[in-house]
Amino acid sequence: MIAAQYRGAGQIGHITTELGTPGPGEVRVAVHYTGICGTDLHIFHGHMDARVTMPAVIGHEMSGVVSEVGPDVTEWSVGDAVTVMPLQWCGECPACRAGHSHICHRLVFIGIDSPGALQNEWVVPAKTLVALPAGLDLRTAALVEPLAVALHDLGRARLQPGQHVLVVGGGPIGALIALGALKRDVEVLVSEPDASRRALLERLGVATVDPTTTDLAAHVLAWTDGAGVEVAFEVSGVQPGIDAAVEALATRGRLVLVAIHPQPRPVNLHRFFWRELELVGARVYERVDFEAAAALLAEQGERLAALITAVYPLPEAAEAFARLEAGGGVMKVLVDCTVGGAA
Amino acid sequence: MIAAQYRGAGQIGHITTELGTPGPGEVRVAVHYTGICGTDLHIFHGHMDARVTMPAVIGHEMSGVVSEVGPDVTEWSVGDAVTVMPLQWCGECPACRAGHSHICHRLVFIGIDSPGALQNEWVVPAKTLVALPAGLDLRTAALVEPLAVALHDLGRARLQPGQHVLVVGGGPIGALIALGALKRDVEVLVSEPDASRRALLERLGVATVDPTTTDLAAHVLAWTDGAGVEVAFEVSGVQPGIDAAVEALATRGRLVLVAIHPQPRPVNLHRFFWRELELVGARVYERVDFEAAAALLAEQGERLAALITAVYPLPEAAEAFARLEAGGGVMKVLVDCTVGGAA
Repeated sequence: MIAAQYRGAGQIGHITTELGTPGPGEVRVAVHYTGICGTDLHIFHGHMDARVTMPAVIGHEMSGVVSEVGPDVTEWSVGDAVTVMPLQWCGECPACRAGHSHICHRLVFIGIDSPGALQNEWVVPAKTLVALPAGLDLRTAALVEPLAVALHDLGRARLQPGQHVLVVGGGPIGALIALGALKRDVEVLVSEPDASRRALLERLGVATVDPTTTDLAAHVLAWTDGAGVEVAFEVSGVQPGIDAAVEALATRGRLVLVAIHPQPRPVNLHRFFWRELELVGARVYERVDFEAAAALLAEQGERLAALITAVYPLPEAAEAFARLEAGGGVMKVLVDCTVGGAA
Repeated sequence: MIAAQYRGAGQIGHITTELGTPGPGEVRVAVHYTGICGTDLHIFHGHMDARVTMPAVIGHEMSGVVSEVGPDVTEWSVGDAVTVMPLQWCGECPACRAGHSHICHRLVFIGIDSPGALQNEWVVPAKTLVALPAGLDLRTAALVEPLAVALHDLGRARLQPGQHVLVVGGGPIGALIALGALKRDVEVLVSEPDASRRALLERLGVATVDPTTTDLAAHVLAWTDGAGVEVAFEVSGVQPGIDAAVEALATRGRLVLVAIHPQPRPVNLHRFFWRELELVGARVYERVDFEAAAALLAEQGERLAALITAVYPLPEAAEAFARLEAGGGVMKVLVDCTVGGAA
């Protein structure tokens, strides 16, 4: 079989290897589709070389079919359609003891801290598997993981029907947050500078605004009758995104911090004081989010699959990264991992 | 009667005036004691000259006795012991409509935006009065307003019994937060560089630490068995306070932002993401906080009165400000407003 490998900033290569054999508590999964995440792109840029052991098989947004089960695995069978919740926690640290094992102090993120899904066949712990609903095609099912992120973010927002919600950043996660929010009887607006992403969102029924040509703060005030939004999601990862989200919030509004900001950011804390705002960090997901994402995709898969811009065969994984790099009209890019397995 | 006046940065003078007459919906209160707040000191430094109309009678932490009621005021009588909740809201703005009138978009803060309590007799809207419990002496009752601030902050923290709470900054508000928290079955630690403030807090049963000589982060980890604190209050108003509070928080911990930070502050947003932290702004109070503060002072007044460092007669109000300026062993300074009334 073959696997794509990250070999250093800007370098994706391939290796031909033997099939892995699942040990006790493990399964092997024939990977069908693997999505490329913003974090994968971050790794590709070399920004996470201190964490990633090279050469590294990365990738963690996937769908597949169980192809072999370890000796003591009884709850899964060959042929089961699955995705993987790529988290392994210690069960002993303060976060785990407090019931927040999804953000364990010693969390192993499979596909970053250990080998990932950009390969034909992948050996993973059986307990990371999540069953895919009947009728959910495996291509669309590669969206379960990012949708689980979005549903976790929405959960942290504690939305109430009738609220106004601003999503700052209309990439894949921002888009999934917006589409998920629409299911909760709230009004949604996405701020996104990329015209093609805005057009796609508008086709899916999501209102958008271009913050580079529209005064977002004035737009939000007009939209909310002077109040501001009850909830804003910061998904842009840039300073203007933070500033815009804080400015847009109504009294007692809640900012859900989704994007990764590696460096400290100047934040208008006076506004947090003055309007009694809240900031809530949101990271990864819990199993309930994965299960809800799989169920929602089974229901709305055709609609949400519109976010998939392109699919590249595994031997062309480097082109998939290049396409994301190029930007312009790109939302979610998948890699077809069923290809190249003969090697 | 006489009133103290703020006349520009560093200048406190006095004026002799006629007694005011309460109109419809108003009462006149014979002011007994007025505390000097951090905000008053901020005004004294000239930092709020854009907001304060000079010359200004400031002061908003007070106790007194009703001395005259307006023509249509039936719910109050001459001789009633009262304090004033110094907020006036519009009732029409988005914040008021959403039920958050205490932080109305057009909030008038009496004592900042309109004349305050540093005078012998003060005319205020009757609806701002809060009755003082029988048995609460008027000197201690000047602490109702700052204690209401602290109780509001504690409410925003949503404390659970058994939690570990770090208070960053042991001035009057930080001290009242700590003392209020102790009533809620939590473990409390105050970080405060001033030795005399620490000594006073220790005498009142509050554990303290000097962040200038102790590694606060390591101290908190040892105290919490490696977990960090569930709740931190930022009451210092300085950058190291923000940094220390964020670093001290456990997974899913909550930072209650009490202090005013006029300028944007660099905030470690990655930590908010990584540990799914929360930041919650807290400003002023609601009537329920005032009533709870009056009740708590009636119960624990003798204990809490230890926070009162000195009392200056109204004609020496400038000395009260100077004492606060000098620092060193000072916690809460009051002005006795019963003095000088003969003029």
